[in-house]
Amino acid sequence: MPAILVTGGAGYVGSHTVVTLLEQEDIDEIVVVDNLCNSYRHDSDKKPVALRRIEEMTGRTLHFYPIDLSDQKALAKVFENHKIECVIHFAALKAVGESVDKPLEYYQANITGTCTLIEVMRKYNVHKLIYSSSCTVYGEPQRLPLDESHPTGQGISSPYGRTKYFCEEIMKDLCNSDQKWQIISLRYFNPVGAHPSGRIGEDPAGIPNNLMPFISQVAVGRLSELMVFGDDYPTVDGSGVRDYIHVQDLAVGHVKAMKLFQKDGFSGFRAVNLGTGTGYSVLQMISAFEAASGRKIPYKIVNRRAGDIAANYADVSLAQSLLGWSATKTVDDMCRDTWNWQSRNPQGYKC
Amino acid sequence: MPAILVTGGAGYVGSHTVVTLLEQEDIDEIVVVDNLCNSYRHDSDKKPVALRRIEEMTGRTLHFYPIDLSDQKALAKVFENHKIECVIHFAALKAVGESVDKPLEYYQANITGTCTLIEVMRKYNVHKLIYSSSCTVYGEPQRLPLDESHPTGQGISSPYGRTKYFCEEIMKDLCNSDQKWQIISLRYFNPVGAHPSGRIGEDPAGIPNNLMPFISQVAVGRLSELMVFGDDYPTVDGSGVRDYIHVQDLAVGHVKAMKLFQKDGFSGFRAVNLGTGTGYSVLQMISAFEAASGRKIPYKIVNRRAGDIAANYADVSLAQSLLGWSATKTVDDMCRDTWNWQSRNPQGYKC
Repeated sequence: MPAILVTGGAGYVGSHTVVTLLEQEDIDEIVVVDNLCNSYRHDSDKKPVALRRIEEMTGRTLHFYPIDLSDQKALAKVFENHKIECVIHFAALKAVGESVDKPLEYYQANITGTCTLIEVMRKYNVHKLIYSSSCTVYGEPQRLPLDESHPTGQGISSPYGRTKYFCEEIMKDLCNSDQKWQIISLRYFNPVGAHPSGRIGEDPAGIPNNLMPFISQVAVGRLSELMVFGDDYPTVDGSGVRDYIHVQDLAVGHVKAMKLFQKDGFSGFRAVNLGTGTGYSVLQMISAFEAASGRKIPYKIVNRRAGDIAANYADVSLAQSLLGWSATKTVDDMCRDTWNWQSRNPQGYKC
Repeated sequence: MPAILVTGGAGYVGSHTVVTLLEQEDIDEIVVVDNLCNSYRHDSDKKPVALRRIEEMTGRTLHFYPIDLSDQKALAKVFENHKIECVIHFAALKAVGESVDKPLEYYQANITGTCTLIEVMRKYNVHKLIYSSSCTVYGEPQRLPLDESHPTGQGISSPYGRTKYFCEEIMKDLCNSDQKWQIISLRYFNPVGAHPSGRIGEDPAGIPNNLMPFISQVAVGRLSELMVFGDDYPTVDGSGVRDYIHVQDLAVGHVKAMKLFQKDGFSGFRAVNLGTGTGYSVLQMISAFEAASGRKIPYKIVNRRAGDIAANYADVSLAQSLLGWSATKTVDDMCRDTWNWQSRNPQGYKC
């Protein structure tokens, strides 16, 4: 039976997608490749904690290779060992702020890594790829909601965002050069939440870059206070507005995208937004989290952060019409599941 | 004494720049790295013919390493062996049409190659870089002449052009992250001509992609007829207009750019056009070449080529003010020197 290769499968969105994949009856074998640069494993174990917990949750066994995508030979070995049918490519560095300080590392990991993966896929005649993209490819919105025909690549404010945009362009050129390729780029808006079991969730290294893990680490007492970057944006309450999407909904989006590969005549590159289509402000998210957790979230308003935009949210009609996908989870679900994960795992996977 | 590393130094613009560098009194040591993917060497020799001829012309010896930029260890060895002060980075794949068919090879060679070079430079504390860029980064011109503040990255019609644009963006991010970097990106318009000695010149593999080598191979009888892509552009005579620049002028531009590194306070990324500022049409170039060579150039008008634009030419005022550089060679010089090279070397370096 053919297998699905998940790169970065020990990470946040990757691990949740692996769970959803294992719940599919028609999927037999999942192979995870991860360099563990952003995930935790016990010294005594070969597999990272997230994957061990997934095995416990699902009663199934995962194949795991602790390799970096830059290691072409090791990657080729994975394709030798398993009959890979499709690749879901999450592996990437993703901290916006860090990418400004270490751009070369980001270009190497995200672009060179993706090119190496594609090269190996081609060598083993695997041409189905789902790519982990981001709404940052749209840069500063010229209109809202952001639909997939909105220009990309203009006014992107971080090297991280440029790596996502560059990879999309590389994949478009690849699809133009060879009709065999089927590539779906899923442009995530703001992934939050966790598996309702509370066994897996987001476990960022260091101070979180994103709002939700920051809030939840304040709630659990790891951080003392939340900083709200700007309260003078032209939004409902002055704080920035984003389209938050539950990571379980995202995970389902990947499975739906895989089904598209089976449709007659699908070939080439296709980008699809994954979001709820509704924006929430930072202050609204704080309130929702306080309600879900029963904890007060102390915060202070500070200056706007360079490169931040006032608002963005997705036009999600293409995901509906093309993939038959739409988000099902509410902001309350997102906050409840995040809090469930964080309160059960105050230090993340390092318990 | 510090050395200058020239990547792609056996290639067309690279080899001419090496000659000009060797003519500078204050430059002692030139180290050339080239993977020879686009240049010729005799089986019995370690060095490519172009570099051997340069050694004969100048009476000087070059250091040469036949390595690919993807070979990080071999590249690091070069930095171990020589005290490199500055890198001039020509090495890249450059055939626009081929890049459409083989995009992955172009992204690997041009982006991964550049990132690896930068990584090794940083490791050896070398932060001065001159990059071989192209006017293709401007995409479809929104105005003419093209000055350096014209937007880049929009409407670029080939993977080749995107590799140049992506590399510039990577270098900008790099300079933003670390003040130690000094990077000058020279945006060439259309390099033509050859060294007046006729000993080195452009020697493309296969059917030439560019006008001038195509014309000269027709003139010398290697090709039977020139194709002119479109005669219905809104230009002086309907054929496409480009800003042709003599490769010797280009070479001098690199030496002038190197001098900028010595100026107090220069740091960061700077892009500079290298062109004449004047556009010539395809039909004008044919006439000029016929006059210079005394040969008739048979041609036929065919359809426009996808992705071609009507006209482009440079605003060259920044090169003048910042580098003290301007083109000195005329179109007649370009045609004469091209013909001198081609007629003396009808089969290029494979004589």
